[in-house]
Amino acid sequence: MGSRLVIALGGNALGSTPAQQLELVKQTASTIVDLVEEGHDVIVGHGNGPQVGMINLAFEFAANNNAGTPEMPFPECGAMTQGYIGYHLQQAIGRELKKRGINKPVVTVVTQVEVSRNDKAFQNPTKPIGSFYTKEQAEKIIAETGYTFVEDARRGYRRVVPSPIPISIVELDVVEKLVNSGAIVITVGGGGIPVVKADDYYEGVAAVIDKDRASARLALDLHADMLIILTAVDRVSINYRKENQQDLPEMSVEEARRYIAENQFAPGSMLPKVESCIEYVEHEENGKALITSLHRAKEALRGETGTIIHR
Amino acid sequence: MGSRLVIALGGNALGSTPAQQLELVKQTASTIVDLVEEGHDVIVGHGNGPQVGMINLAFEFAANNNAGTPEMPFPECGAMTQGYIGYHLQQAIGRELKKRGINKPVVTVVTQVEVSRNDKAFQNPTKPIGSFYTKEQAEKIIAETGYTFVEDARRGYRRVVPSPIPISIVELDVVEKLVNSGAIVITVGGGGIPVVKADDYYEGVAAVIDKDRASARLALDLHADMLIILTAVDRVSINYRKENQQDLPEMSVEEARRYIAENQFAPGSMLPKVESCIEYVEHEENGKALITSLHRAKEALRGETGTIIHR
Repeated sequence: MGSRLVIALGGNALGSTPAQQLELVKQTASTIVDLVEEGHDVIVGHGNGPQVGMINLAFEFAANNNAGTPEMPFPECGAMTQGYIGYHLQQAIGRELKKRGINKPVVTVVTQVEVSRNDKAFQNPTKPIGSFYTKEQAEKIIAETGYTFVEDARRGYRRVVPSPIPISIVELDVVEKLVNSGAIVITVGGGGIPVVKADDYYEGVAAVIDKDRASARLALDLHADMLIILTAVDRVSINYRKENQQDLPEMSVEEARRYIAENQFAPGSMLPKVESCIEYVEHEENGKALITSLHRAKEALRGETGTIIHR
Repeated sequence: MGSRLVIALGGNALGSTPAQQLELVKQTASTIVDLVEEGHDVIVGHGNGPQVGMINLAFEFAANNNAGTPEMPFPECGAMTQGYIGYHLQQAIGRELKKRGINKPVVTVVTQVEVSRNDKAFQNPTKPIGSFYTKEQAEKIIAETGYTFVEDARRGYRRVVPSPIPISIVELDVVEKLVNSGAIVITVGGGGIPVVKADDYYEGVAAVIDKDRASARLALDLHADMLIILTAVDRVSINYRKENQQDLPEMSVEEARRYIAENQFAPGSMLPKVESCIEYVEHEENGKALITSLHRAKEALRGETGTIIHR
């Protein structure tokens, strides 16, 4: 019997332009359908860094230059990426399913993910978004909007937004129903549209939720058998790019914690992936996590490559 | 027992900027939840004219002025609007459901709608999109891309795309499952992302599918009990804005056809709405169609206003 797999797709699974993305999702779809063909239920989370940056930049540029279009808030830009990336993914997956004669629906669910206003990330925004500005321009925007800017050594000032921890997936019930019905579900795109509790419901907030953390949340909430984080390398390494580099076929949560304490994993790169795997494995009794590359996911599931994170 | 209602939301249910839309969807959500509260299953289709125009314009302007963002094809702009509008709608509907203590999921499905390459609309594109250009600029773009432009009397040249008839809804199975499971489903946004059959599956095509026609297709495919087209007026009229204007509480398909022959309904406005109702009523045995205003939908369902189109 197949397992329930939550897959988190990295930036290399998509692309920086629509043409590039339409090409790259073919390989991504092939990998996803490989897993479907082996009988697994597949739920797909994905990042949106370059795509949300692109949409944000186009709207910012157009508004700053009086093109007649409005300013576009950051959560709305994220919602747009879910439609844009979801459309390409579901078309590519649909094509691949048809090619292999598999009759299975594929669906993108526009997904909000709740974060806390009290998350300490809001006191320390770190994720750069949008254009570069001069000091004077940045100061004017800060005075008008209260946005936070940071100085980039060479290129000027740039807005930063917080990266809070995902608390809950607003559309979880629907996602679960769709998974149970046999659909391939694309959700938590870009980590989800970030929302916070308001008096009466939720409201959007300018933030970026790490897509691996959102996918770990999803894997926990769906009691998935495995969280698979697809990235650019086949295996997690310690002493990465040093003479004594060691690629790891597996590590326990305890070992992973020790490597983290040794600063073995780069912040903003392998670190949040390993942390997301720990979060999932610690809270899902029989859950295992796997970090591997997009094009070797199938072999990795057979134990031929990849790094398994277990209790 | 409740009925299955497909609602087509017009432009007045949304807005031209994100702030305006966030405000307008509150009223829209209130109307939708009124119908849900009366026990009906509600499926929501919506337009995207101003929104897809806005996204297309921002990307066109940014690309033309070397902002560093790519050109964005029209189907991808439409996919973005589904995320953007769906997010606002599902948040507003979720808030209204919570306020009234109704526990029901609401979900936006990114939806492709198939049109035919042989649709005669492709020989005669009519829907203007994007910016105005000078004659020289337009000729350069035509030479580079093969796009069709039309001259606007005062403002210059503008790209036009075809408005073909919707043939099928690619994600129909998923939409139907969700409706059967009790969810409020937002789908065929902007008439759906227009796709045509390719050798191996579907591919996007630059076109605008009329949202009322797509909603009629949806109502037929879901065997809905009623198609409700919400617009700016409470009732359909003949001799509209003349001394002898007559507001219609109901009309048969035969009467509707006669009025169409008399040019009673404006092309691009009431005409496609009435035609969509005819299409639905003629093919769904017990189906009735209703055209009314957003804020009087509840009364219209009780027969107090609105125009019913029947066999």
